[in-house]
Amino acid sequence: MAIKRIAINTGGGDAPGLNGVIRAVALSAYREGWEVVGIREGYRGLLDDDPELLPVLDPDRVRGIMHLGGTILGTTNRGDPFNFPVMVDGKPEPRDMSKKLVDRFKELGFDALVALGGDGSMSLATRLLKAGLPRVIGVPKTIDNDLKGTDITFGFETAVSTATEALDRLHTTAQSHRRVMVVEVMGRDAGWIALHAGIGGGADVILIPEIPFRLESVYEKLHRRYQRGRQFAIVVVAEGAKLQDGAAVYKGEKGQFREHAQLGGISEYLAREIGRATGYETRNVVLGHLQRGGSPVTYDRVLAQRLGCAATRYLKETTESGLVAMRGGRTQLVPFSEVVGGTRGVDANDELVLTARALGLCFGDEPPGTFVA
Amino acid sequence: MAIKRIAINTGGGDAPGLNGVIRAVALSAYREGWEVVGIREGYRGLLDDDPELLPVLDPDRVRGIMHLGGTILGTTNRGDPFNFPVMVDGKPEPRDMSKKLVDRFKELGFDALVALGGDGSMSLATRLLKAGLPRVIGVPKTIDNDLKGTDITFGFETAVSTATEALDRLHTTAQSHRRVMVVEVMGRDAGWIALHAGIGGGADVILIPEIPFRLESVYEKLHRRYQRGRQFAIVVVAEGAKLQDGAAVYKGEKGQFREHAQLGGISEYLAREIGRATGYETRNVVLGHLQRGGSPVTYDRVLAQRLGCAATRYLKETTESGLVAMRGGRTQLVPFSEVVGGTRGVDANDELVLTARALGLCFGDEPPGTFVA
Amino acid sequence: MAIKRIAINTGGGDAPGLNGVIRAVALSAYREGWEVVGIREGYRGLLDDDPELLPVLDPDRVRGIMHLGGTILGTTNRGDPFNFPVMVDGKPEPRDMSKKLVDRFKELGFDALVALGGDGSMSLATRLLKAGLPRVIGVPKTIDNDLKGTDITFGFETAVSTATEALDRLHTTAQSHRRVMVVEVMGRDAGWIALHAGIGGGADVILIPEIPFRLESVYEKLHRRYQRGRQFAIVVVAEGAKLQDGAAVYKGEKGQFREHAQLGGISEYLAREIGRATGYETRNVVLGHLQRGGSPVTYDRVLAQRLGCAATRYLKETTESGLVAMRGGRTQLVPFSEVVGGTRGVDANDELVLTARALGLCFGDEPPGTFVA
Amino acid sequence: MAIKRIAINTGGGDAPGLNGVIRAVALSAYREGWEVVGIREGYRGLLDDDPELLPVLDPDRVRGIMHLGGTILGTTNRGDPFNFPVMVDGKPEPRDMSKKLVDRFKELGFDALVALGGDGSMSLATRLLKAGLPRVIGVPKTIDNDLKGTDITFGFETAVSTATEALDRLHTTAQSHRRVMVVEVMGRDAGWIALHAGIGGGADVILIPEIPFRLESVYEKLHRRYQRGRQFAIVVVAEGAKLQDGAAVYKGEKGQFREHAQLGGISEYLAREIGRATGYETRNVVLGHLQRGGSPVTYDRVLAQRLGCAATRYLKETTESGLVAMRGGRTQLVPFSEVVGGTRGVDANDELVLTARALGLCFGDEPPGTFVA
Repeated sequence: MAIKRIAINTGGGDAPGLNGVIRAVALSAYREGWEVVGIREGYRGLLDDDPELLPVLDPDRVRGIMHLGGTILGTTNRGDPFNFPVMVDGKPEPRDMSKKLVDRFKELGFDALVALGGDGSMSLATRLLKAGLPRVIGVPKTIDNDLKGTDITFGFETAVSTATEALDRLHTTAQSHRRVMVVEVMGRDAGWIALHAGIGGGADVILIPEIPFRLESVYEKLHRRYQRGRQFAIVVVAEGAKLQDGAAVYKGEKGQFREHAQLGGISEYLAREIGRATGYETRNVVLGHLQRGGSPVTYDRVLAQRLGCAATRYLKETTESGLVAMRGGRTQLVPFSEVVGGTRGVDANDELVLTARALGLCFGDEPPGTFVA
Repeated sequence: MAIKRIAINTGGGDAPGLNGVIRAVALSAYREGWEVVGIREGYRGLLDDDPELLPVLDPDRVRGIMHLGGTILGTTNRGDPFNFPVMVDGKPEPRDMSKKLVDRFKELGFDALVALGGDGSMSLATRLLKAGLPRVIGVPKTIDNDLKGTDITFGFETAVSTATEALDRLHTTAQSHRRVMVVEVMGRDAGWIALHAGIGGGADVILIPEIPFRLESVYEKLHRRYQRGRQFAIVVVAEGAKLQDGAAVYKGEKGQFREHAQLGGISEYLAREIGRATGYETRNVVLGHLQRGGSPVTYDRVLAQRLGCAATRYLKETTESGLVAMRGGRTQLVPFSEVVGGTRGVDANDELVLTARALGLCFGDEPPGTFVA
Repeated sequence: MAIKRIAINTGGGDAPGLNGVIRAVALSAYREGWEVVGIREGYRGLLDDDPELLPVLDPDRVRGIMHLGGTILGTTNRGDPFNFPVMVDGKPEPRDMSKKLVDRFKELGFDALVALGGDGSMSLATRLLKAGLPRVIGVPKTIDNDLKGTDITFGFETAVSTATEALDRLHTTAQSHRRVMVVEVMGRDAGWIALHAGIGGGADVILIPEIPFRLESVYEKLHRRYQRGRQFAIVVVAEGAKLQDGAAVYKGEKGQFREHAQLGGISEYLAREIGRATGYETRNVVLGHLQRGGSPVTYDRVLAQRLGCAATRYLKETTESGLVAMRGGRTQLVPFSEVVGGTRGVDANDELVLTARALGLCFGDEPPGTFVA
Repeated sequence: MAIKRIAINTGGGDAPGLNGVIRAVALSAYREGWEVVGIREGYRGLLDDDPELLPVLDPDRVRGIMHLGGTILGTTNRGDPFNFPVMVDGKPEPRDMSKKLVDRFKELGFDALVALGGDGSMSLATRLLKAGLPRVIGVPKTIDNDLKGTDITFGFETAVSTATEALDRLHTTAQSHRRVMVVEVMGRDAGWIALHAGIGGGADVILIPEIPFRLESVYEKLHRRYQRGRQFAIVVVAEGAKLQDGAAVYKGEKGQFREHAQLGGISEYLAREIGRATGYETRNVVLGHLQRGGSPVTYDRVLAQRLGCAATRYLKETTESGLVAMRGGRTQLVPFSEVVGGTRGVDANDELVLTARALGLCFGDEPPGTFVA
């Protein structure tokens, strides 16, 4: 069926590049003669709002937004339509609103949805297709780069660049004060940001969820470095990094998993333990939400627009639903079944891990004696 | 007495521009035919090291360092020569090493010291002059900009720029998620960074030590803003900001003053309280040591080199000790007595405070009803 | 007379910070209960447009513009109302439209004009006051920083930063290839950008209009540098730099003054002459309009908003016309008579010139033998 | 034969990331127990210098260089050993020095060469292998990204980012003054920089060597844009862009091919022609050497170190010569025969070209009527 009118939304955590995709979909669809309508805050715009308020994204509406961070549509982590918070007696209670959503979608005459999001958003898309949504094209967004089925997601390179710039800044002050700086970056399940930023920012230690670590290995690396006269160091740690022993994930002093960018996380723990064990002066910094914001780097601007235009193209040229994935340097429409469920983590034999090891970096899993110069 | 050989050191917290001053002193003194010797880590180089290891800062030694953050000489917060940590039975005990320091200084043939530092360093300089050091020229360094006797200190503009860039990043993600972002910047005693970055970064609330605040005033500002449809906000808070009621300085949950950039500080407290009182989603970020590092912005590069060359000039053209201050756009040699003791805070009637109020920003001291649109 | 309704315009060359001033005037005037109306492209909006189209700058209209380069009002170098291009038989002919302008201004009920501009704009303001405009408050804008009566203009620090970043980039490639890089920056009459960027970017030679130069002095500096083993160099030249001999200003090969950022200017000339005379490999780069664009640095954002709010304050608290100048770190309302006519150039004994000379930089006016190491 | 001692050099135009590769090769080879020796300025270090002066690149020697632009080894475009400039009677005359080079290489005990360069350097490597050099591993460097056999070269993403930042700056000033900005970027044979920066920087027109253009198509695009009320535009042009008619490459007014970044190039021509034909105000900017300099962006830092470590790995694990290419997201050792001869240009059907067209950009090859809104 020929497309005439499509909806677009953004879900889950913010990522630089969302506006670039929105603009690219809007402009490329406009050239096809389609109407593009934005849904606010995930699916909330269809469930809360007077549909009259949904913005029509004509070229004027998406003008000058490509290089801006954030999303003009808004986003939320709390908009699951199958458990949608409905106010009952003044309190939010979760309700399955999927049927209402599908009905509205059809009433409004949408032929398809372009959904920008990560694993959670693609899972929702799958379920909504089953619930009757006519067609969904997903666009892979996550600063963590851990979405299955695609080589890369937009937002990641900007997050890595932000983290690397921070490492550059911390390098000079670490050296001046002879300090070990422990820098916590995002990555609950996957260590991609830590791995790339650690290599790009010249870190000495990289700790990621996929490679559980021993503190003794970190101490040995630092000792060897200080003994050689390099009396400062940078430790990059993904928020989800794990100790090898049973303690699994470090959960904060209050015994509960600490949310993204909240304080008392793993970097504070590491700074304290390293200080105690080595006697070196330590400090920690949590980059937190800095990694989600700001103007996308050029790489992400180009990627976002490539993906957005491809979404329009696959809508036009195929009749399928699926994710616009990057594979081997070009886009490909991939079934959602290859995407949802689980994340794509760092393989311990990934070439970048080998690169880091060849440069002498420590992942914390090295046997004793590894860093004897 | 004609100068022939001078020493230079850097003390206290790291600040962008230190290397620019070092280079400028070294190059300008070299043109006068003087020898410049660097002392490592404040005064530690004179007390610990074999004097043979003090680096002679000839032009080759200071090449290419001007735009680098940090200090090639190292710095420390723990090098007070009147309470110097001397190892006794394997433990550090504070000892007065000032006499040894002055003797070494003279043995090494130094005619004067150029001391880069803040209030603490200038106090030490005063005491060391009394203890027999022949002459000291101070150069005003602190990212907090709170040194008395000078209009501006190098390092400040870079710290402000780093904080402003962070606010730019957080703006976009705050808006996408409809969040109140509470951003903690440095400033234990003075709110200059918060004030400048808050204005430059388009914040909605600025909380500084000099203007104790009420939480209710902040809530009112946020309510008014959300009611007008701007459903996100940026709160900038200096780490030393104080509540108006008796509680004085917020000291963290454990009842003790939390060190710079350490976790559990005032921004975490504010994010929690604001969330509880308003129901808006909140997040906090602590910029911490990011503000001390990185390449100095152009303003600080020019200022650092101006101050460094002026230090050499005042050494040559006068016989005084004192601080090379900036006053009314040019340098001036100011007696240390005008500099040490206390800090230069933000005046509640400072033109920039009036500017912020005219823009509609909240300082938390407004009477109820101020922000009724 | 109490102010109720004011107009605001931007004139002359674009400068980073214009939008910050516009926003600050709009927000601060809004808090006074005034209406602020924007005039498009200097005075063109009053002469060309249907007055209904003049935008009312309420808070919503100036939202999110502070950190953007450019001006939402547009600007022009061709809008002198005393010689306004009026179409006659399809061709523009200059006409005195000042009376019409003043009449329109009054018809529209404006009590005062806030005029953002440089020397040209302030001269126009003086003449329009004589022609009957009720009141004008000027705000000092020029990336060249050469406006009389004020210590600093907004836009300058951003232009300097852009130029310094360019020098940083060119440094590394100059060194890799052993080249002399000649970099042309703006400054037809004044060398402030060249002076600040040259010091901030670690240049070896700075050539400015205020200090006419000899080529031989430049060659000597370069020879000495190459002989000492530093086989690359950076020459910063203001577009208006002059040779000492009769040739006055270099005018390009076609014998006519070359416009800003146009090709074939003084840097191409210098690169060729230096290459011929020394045999060193040379390249030239003209930064041109890059210096006018982009997001203002934090310094300019704060300055712009300080000036904008002060404009409102002086409108409220005084009955005078004049320029909101920065003097000694705070604003002051200065009569236009102290501002217009001539420019504020670099004094040959300015402390920054002495700073540069103390660092060993060459201005091209040194007697032979100066750079014998 | 087991590797014990290797040489490394950098050839051709400077590119950000060279130091990252050098450091990665040095550190990874050090861990294998090999000695790494740097050859200065391509092959010049072997032909000119006292071999004693070749620097041994131990870990201390490559410390802190990863994030620096340029190359610590120096580079040159004039070091072809088969046509090496030898001084004869005070004049340089080209001589075949390949035999001497190979002899020296063997005398110095090198088992292999790691050669960082583009097409020219890889061609030389092929010829030197035939002339007796034992083994060469190439690492693909060119900001133009036009090397055959690899998906990507280091330095490119940084050059693109520099160009995109420049477009961001020029956007704001173009809009304020209603100007058409013509921006010339590098790319004599390939339009990759223009294509990526044009998309990332929101250009309206992209002109590249691979798609010869008609001026009329550009005019039409601009007319349509201005008619829709968007009265400014950005034209990005690769220096090697060609007109469709016989004139082939625009060669400058003096009828000769103008060198990279030299003035009087294609952007000046275009600005003049567009101004004449459309009556719109135009300006041109030549980015030139800015694109070669500066600290590599994170992407290039990671890529450079991945390639450098892979060079060591392929030296260890294989006995082949060849290029360390990136293919499908990982490295691969590719025979030089697949690399040398010709360049890898933009295919007219490349997905990014389609992306740009879908966004409404003009390549100058569109038939009349394309841009009728």
